[in-house]
Amino acid sequence: MLSYAAVGKKIRLGRLLPDGKSLIFAFDHGVEHGPSDFSGETINPRKILEKIVDVVDAIMLLPGMANITSDVWAGKVPLIVKVTSKTSLRPEDARLLQSPFGWVEDVVALGAEAVAATVYWGSHYEDSMLRQWFTVKREAEKYGLPCLQLSYPRGPAIKNMYDVEVVRYGVRAAIESGADLIKTYYTGSTETFREVVKTAAGIPVLMSGGAKAKTLLDFLHVVKSVMDAGGQGVVVGRNIFQHENPKGAAKAISAVVHEGLDPEEAVKKAG
Amino acid sequence: MLSYAAVGKKIRLGRLLPDGKSLIFAFDHGVEHGPSDFSGETINPRKILEKIVDVVDAIMLLPGMANITSDVWAGKVPLIVKVTSKTSLRPEDARLLQSPFGWVEDVVALGAEAVAATVYWGSHYEDSMLRQWFTVKREAEKYGLPCLQLSYPRGPAIKNMYDVEVVRYGVRAAIESGADLIKTYYTGSTETFREVVKTAAGIPVLMSGGAKAKTLLDFLHVVKSVMDAGGQGVVVGRNIFQHENPKGAAKAISAVVHEGLDPEEAVKKAG
Amino acid sequence: MLSYAAVGKKIRLGRLLPDGKSLIFAFDHGVEHGPSDFSGETINPRKILEKIVDVVDAIMLLPGMANITSDVWAGKVPLIVKVTSKTSLRPEDARLLQSPFGWVEDVVALGAEAVAATVYWGSHYEDSMLRQWFTVKREAEKYGLPCLQLSYPRGPAIKNMYDVEVVRYGVRAAIESGADLIKTYYTGSTETFREVVKTAAGIPVLMSGGAKAKTLLDFLHVVKSVMDAGGQGVVVGRNIFQHENPKGAAKAISAVVHEGLDPEEAVKKAG
Amino acid sequence: MLSYAAVGKKIRLGRLLPDGKSLIFAFDHGVEHGPSDFSGETINPRKILEKIVDVVDAIMLLPGMANITSDVWAGKVPLIVKVTSKTSLRPEDARLLQSPFGWVEDVVALGAEAVAATVYWGSHYEDSMLRQWFTVKREAEKYGLPCLQLSYPRGPAIKNMYDVEVVRYGVRAAIESGADLIKTYYTGSTETFREVVKTAAGIPVLMSGGAKAKTLLDFLHVVKSVMDAGGQGVVVGRNIFQHENPKGAAKAISAVVHEGLDPEEAVKKAG
Amino acid sequence: MLSYAAVGKKIRLGRLLPDGKSLIFAFDHGVEHGPSDFSGETINPRKILEKIVDVVDAIMLLPGMANITSDVWAGKVPLIVKVTSKTSLRPEDARLLQSPFGWVEDVVALGAEAVAATVYWGSHYEDSMLRQWFTVKREAEKYGLPCLQLSYPRGPAIKNMYDVEVVRYGVRAAIESGADLIKTYYTGSTETFREVVKTAAGIPVLMSGGAKAKTLLDFLHVVKSVMDAGGQGVVVGRNIFQHENPKGAAKAISAVVHEGLDPEEAVKKAG
Repeated sequence: MLSYAAVGKKIRLGRLLPDGKSLIFAFDHGVEHGPSDFSGETINPRKILEKIVDVVDAIMLLPGMANITSDVWAGKVPLIVKVTSKTSLRPEDARLLQSPFGWVEDVVALGAEAVAATVYWGSHYEDSMLRQWFTVKREAEKYGLPCLQLSYPRGPAIKNMYDVEVVRYGVRAAIESGADLIKTYYTGSTETFREVVKTAAGIPVLMSGGAKAKTLLDFLHVVKSVMDAGGQGVVVGRNIFQHENPKGAAKAISAVVHEGLDPEEAVKKAG
Repeated sequence: MLSYAAVGKKIRLGRLLPDGKSLIFAFDHGVEHGPSDFSGETINPRKILEKIVDVVDAIMLLPGMANITSDVWAGKVPLIVKVTSKTSLRPEDARLLQSPFGWVEDVVALGAEAVAATVYWGSHYEDSMLRQWFTVKREAEKYGLPCLQLSYPRGPAIKNMYDVEVVRYGVRAAIESGADLIKTYYTGSTETFREVVKTAAGIPVLMSGGAKAKTLLDFLHVVKSVMDAGGQGVVVGRNIFQHENPKGAAKAISAVVHEGLDPEEAVKKAG
Repeated sequence: MLSYAAVGKKIRLGRLLPDGKSLIFAFDHGVEHGPSDFSGETINPRKILEKIVDVVDAIMLLPGMANITSDVWAGKVPLIVKVTSKTSLRPEDARLLQSPFGWVEDVVALGAEAVAATVYWGSHYEDSMLRQWFTVKREAEKYGLPCLQLSYPRGPAIKNMYDVEVVRYGVRAAIESGADLIKTYYTGSTETFREVVKTAAGIPVLMSGGAKAKTLLDFLHVVKSVMDAGGQGVVVGRNIFQHENPKGAAKAISAVVHEGLDPEEAVKKAG
Repeated sequence: MLSYAAVGKKIRLGRLLPDGKSLIFAFDHGVEHGPSDFSGETINPRKILEKIVDVVDAIMLLPGMANITSDVWAGKVPLIVKVTSKTSLRPEDARLLQSPFGWVEDVVALGAEAVAATVYWGSHYEDSMLRQWFTVKREAEKYGLPCLQLSYPRGPAIKNMYDVEVVRYGVRAAIESGADLIKTYYTGSTETFREVVKTAAGIPVLMSGGAKAKTLLDFLHVVKSVMDAGGQGVVVGRNIFQHENPKGAAKAISAVVHEGLDPEEAVKKAG
Repeated sequence: MLSYAAVGKKIRLGRLLPDGKSLIFAFDHGVEHGPSDFSGETINPRKILEKIVDVVDAIMLLPGMANITSDVWAGKVPLIVKVTSKTSLRPEDARLLQSPFGWVEDVVALGAEAVAATVYWGSHYEDSMLRQWFTVKREAEKYGLPCLQLSYPRGPAIKNMYDVEVVRYGVRAAIESGADLIKTYYTGSTETFREVVKTAAGIPVLMSGGAKAKTLLDFLHVVKSVMDAGGQGVVVGRNIFQHENPKGAAKAISAVVHEGLDPEEAVKKAG
C-alpha cells in the first residue's frame, strides 16, 4: 500500500510525463537574464504563453508569473513552480547562489503539479543551496509534490560544465538528494548523454534547452539526440519563445519528443 | 470563485487606486535620509500629513510613524506600511541592504491596505532582501494584503540605474516575485517609460518621485509623461512636502494623475 | 475603544512618567563598562539601589540584575528591563554591536513596566540591531509593553556623535521604528536640544546622563537645559551612583526634573 | 523501567549489530566522490545493492538513494540514512563542511534503523557541524533512533588524520556528543586501534573502509586487526563495490567480522 | 509566594550546595583537551567516576558522557550538564567560540540539577555565545533549572585573563546575565579573590580548578584561599582525576571546602 503522498506524487508525475516523456516550457528568464531576452510583443508573458499552452506538456514559472498569467494557462496545462532564482544584475561572485523565490506553500496554493529548484553543485554557496533544496524537499514530500532539480554544476573548481563527467556528477547528486525529475545540460553527443541518463538510475532526465540554437533544425537534432540517449524530454525556453513561430517550434520539438520524428520531418511543423 | 484572500486583495487595491490610478504620498525619508530633509515646521510629521490627507489617494509610512500620527490620517486616507529601511548614517558598503523595519502582523494590526518593501536588485545583499521580500509576501498572501515593491536596481555591476534596460529588469523581477504594485525610477522619457510599463505586464507601475525638481512644473511634466506612458501613478514625497504649499502641490499632481490635466494647467492649483 | 495592549501601554507609561516627566536610574554599567565603574561598597548593587529606590521614578536593569536585587526594588519603584548589551572587553570592531541580553518574556515575567534596547544607528551592525529591535518590538506590542530605545548614532561615517544633526537623525529613526520612549545624547545646548525634542514629534525624549560631570551642579545645569528644551527627563547612572551621596544627588536631579528648581537651589538637596 | 525511546534504540541497535558486530555497506560515494567511483554497470545502484543485501548487516544510504532503491533492499536488510554530505566539486576550502542532506523525519519515514551524520572535528566549520549534529541528535532521541557519527578529524591544525592520538580525540568527542555508533579511520595497527576502541568506552567503533586496498586479502588483514583490537565491525564501500565480485568480497569481510576467520581463509569466499 | 520554577531552582541549588558550599567534579576535558588528558585506565570514564561519586557534591558532564555513564552516577550524586564545548583540534582563531553541545531539554531528560554553559567574555564570538547563553537561560527558567556560567574572559583585547579586574568583569557580566552559579579563574590571592566574590553580589562563586598543580598540597592552599575569600567552592577536574589517588584527592579538597580544614591537615586524606 502506498502512502497518501506517494499516490499524489504518482498522479502528478503522470500528468507531467503523459507518455513517460515531456516537453516542458521554461519561462523564468525574466529574472535570470532580464527582459532583454524578450523582443517585441514577447515582453508580454501572456502573448507567449497563449501560443504554447496547447502544445507543451507543462510550463515552469516563478510564483509571481504563475499568479498573473493564470487566466492563460490554468486548466489547460500543468504548472511547475520554480522557487529559486537570482538576477544577472548581481555582482559576479554572487551569481552562483540561487535565492528563495517563493515557498512550497505557494506552489500548493497555486495548484501546481511540481516544485522546481536550482542547485549549483560545486559553488561556494553549495551549502546554502542544499539547505534550501532540502527544506523545499521536506515540505514537498508532505504534499506528494514531485521535486524537479535544475542540477547545474558550476563553480571555481569546474573547468567545463558541459563535460560528461561533470554533468554526471550533478545528476548523481540530484538523485541522491531526492530529485524526482532532473533538468541538466546537454553533453554534446548521444553517446555521452546516454551515460548521463544511466547515471540517473531511472529518474527522468530532461535536457535544459539553453540559448537559442542557430536554427530550429539544429536544436531538434539535439532534442533527438537526448531522446535517443534515453532522456525523458526537454525543458525549453528560448528555443521556443525567441523563435518567430513559437507554437510551431513547440510543435516540432514535441513531435521529436513524443513521436520520435526525425528532425528534418519535425521542423516542417514550425512552418 | 475567488479565495478569501483574493477578495481582500481586490478590495484593498481598489481603495489604493480608486480609478485605476493613484497618487501616493511617501513619507519614509526620516529614516532613509534623516531629518535634514525637513525644514521649519515640517519636522513635525503631523503638520505635513494634515495638509495632504484629503488630497492624496494613500500614504506610505514606516510602522512607528503610522502609529504616532494615526489621529491625523486614520479614517481619512488609506495607509501603506513600509516594513524595510536603512539609514544613510551607515557606512557606504552597508547602504545597499534594506533591513526589516516591522512585520506584516504590524501592517494588519495598523489597519493598512498594503505592505511595502524595497529590493535593491543587483546588490551584494540581493539574497538577503529576497529572503525578506518572500517572507513578507508569504505573510501578506495569507491576509489578502497587496505587496508594493520598491524595485530599485542598485549594485556594483549597474552603471546607470535610470537606464531603461536596467529599470525594466527590476520591473520584470518585481512581477515575477509577486509584486502587486511597483514603484520604480523614471527613465527620462515617455517613450522609454512606456517600455517599463509594458514590462510590468499589467501590474500597476508607479513612478518614484525622487528629489525635489527645480520647479513644480518640471515635476508635473514628468508625472504627465508617466501617465502618458501608461503608468498608474506616482509615489511622491519631497516634491510635495518640500514645496512651499504641500497641499497645492499635491492637488496639482493629483490633477495630472487623475484628470490628465496639462502641467501648465495643473500647476495653477498649487497657488 | 482602545485595544487591550493600548490600555496596558498607557497605564505603564503613566507609571514611568508620573507627571509626564521622569528621572530614571540606569544601572547597566556592570556589563557595558565593567566593575571598574564602581568603587568601595558600590560594587554591591543592593547598596546603590537601596539608596535611590524612593527617589527616582524608575530603574533600568539587565534581567539578571533585576532578578537578584528584587528584594530591594520590587513594590517600590517601577522597573525597566534592558535586553541588549555588550562588554568593553570585546575587540574594538565588535563594540558597535549590542547583543541580546534577555527576552521580552523575561521582562513580562519580571513584572516590568517597559523593555529597553540599544540601537547604534550607523554601525556596520545596524542591520543586526534592527532585527533585534523589531523582534523585541513585536513581542512588546503583544503585551502592551512600552519600548524604550537607547538611540545612539555611532559608526565609521559619523564624525561627531553629539552633533545635533546626528542626534536628531537617531531620534527620528527611533520614532519611525516605534520607540515609545527615547534615550539619547545631550547636544550641548538648550537651543540644539530643543531641535532634538521637536524631532521626536511628541515621543518623550530623555537625556542619557553619561560620564560623571565635574560637579553635580554642572550636571544639574545640563538637566535643567534638557527640561527647558522640552525634554521629558533624564536617565542617569554615574552622576548618581558615583556621587558621594547618591540619594542626595538623585533628589537634586529629581527636583530639577519635576519641580523645575534652579540648579543652584536643587544642588542643596545633595547635602 | 526504560523510557519508550530507550526501548526503540535498543531494538534498533540489536538489528544493526546482530551478534554485537556488524558489517555495514556504505554507499554515499555518489555525492562525496561523484560517479567516477563507479565503473561499468555499477553506475546502477540497484546492481550493486542487489548483490550484497543478503550478505551485509546494514546499508547506509543518503535519503534520495534509499528512496529510489527501496524495491531492492526493503524488508531484506536494515537501513541507515546519512543526512549530511558535500560534493568534491566544491572549492577546496568549502570541502571541510558537511551540509544537511535530509532530515530525521525523512529517516523515520523511510523506516530506517539509524541516522548517520559526519563531523569533521577540527574544521573551520566545526561549529556549523556541531549545530547540525545536535539538531539531528535531538530529533533522533525523540524517536529512539540511534545516531551513527562519522567522526573524522580534519582541519588545518591536524597534521596526520590517521594518527592514533588524533583519531582517539575524534572518538572521545563522538561519545561525549552522544554518538551511539562511531565510524572512524584505521590507525595502522591493532595496537593503536585498541587504544581507539578503549577511548570509545563501550560505544561500538566501526572502521571506515576507505579507498580500495591493493588486494582483498590486504583489506581483510585490516578488518581482522580491527576486530582483534576490539572493534565492533567495519563500514565498507569501495572495497566491496569496486571488487570484481562484490558479493564474494562482502562474504569474505563478513566472515572475518562475525566468525573471526583468518583473512587467508576468508578470502576464499570471494571466489 | 514563589513561582513554580523558583521552587524548583531553590531545591536544585540546595542539592548542589548542601551546606552552601560545593565541590563539583568537572569532566568535560575529553572534548576541550582531548584524550591526552587521560593516562592509563583513566581513559575509561567509568573508572574515574566510580572513585569520586561518593565524595563530590556534584559532577559536571557533557550530555553524551552523562548518558553512557549513568549506571555509575545516577542516584548517587547530582548531575550538572554542560551544553557547550569546542575541541582544541580547531584552528586557533576558532577556539574562542563555544558551540552548542546539547539542549536544555536534554538536561531535563537526563534528570540533572543544573545546566552549564561557557561564555568567553571579550571574544570576537561574544555575540554568538550570548545568543546561546540567553537561549539556554530562557529554557532553563521555564523548568526552574539553575544555570552555571563558566565565565571566562578571553579575547584579543585581554592581556592577562587572571587579572583581578578582568575576572571581576566576567563575574559582573555573569550575574547581570542571570547566572545562578559562577565558575571562574583564581586570581592569585585571597585578597583579590575576595573582590571577585564581592563582585558576585551573593551569587555563588566557584573556582575553576585548572591544570594540575605541582602538588595536591599546593592546590589545597588555593582551595583554602578561595574559601577564605568567601567563595562557595571549587569545580575540579584534573587536580582530581590526574592524581594518583583520585578519591583521596577529592576527599582532601572536600575537607577544605566543607570543613575548612587546613591544607596540611586535609592533604593526609589523600593518603
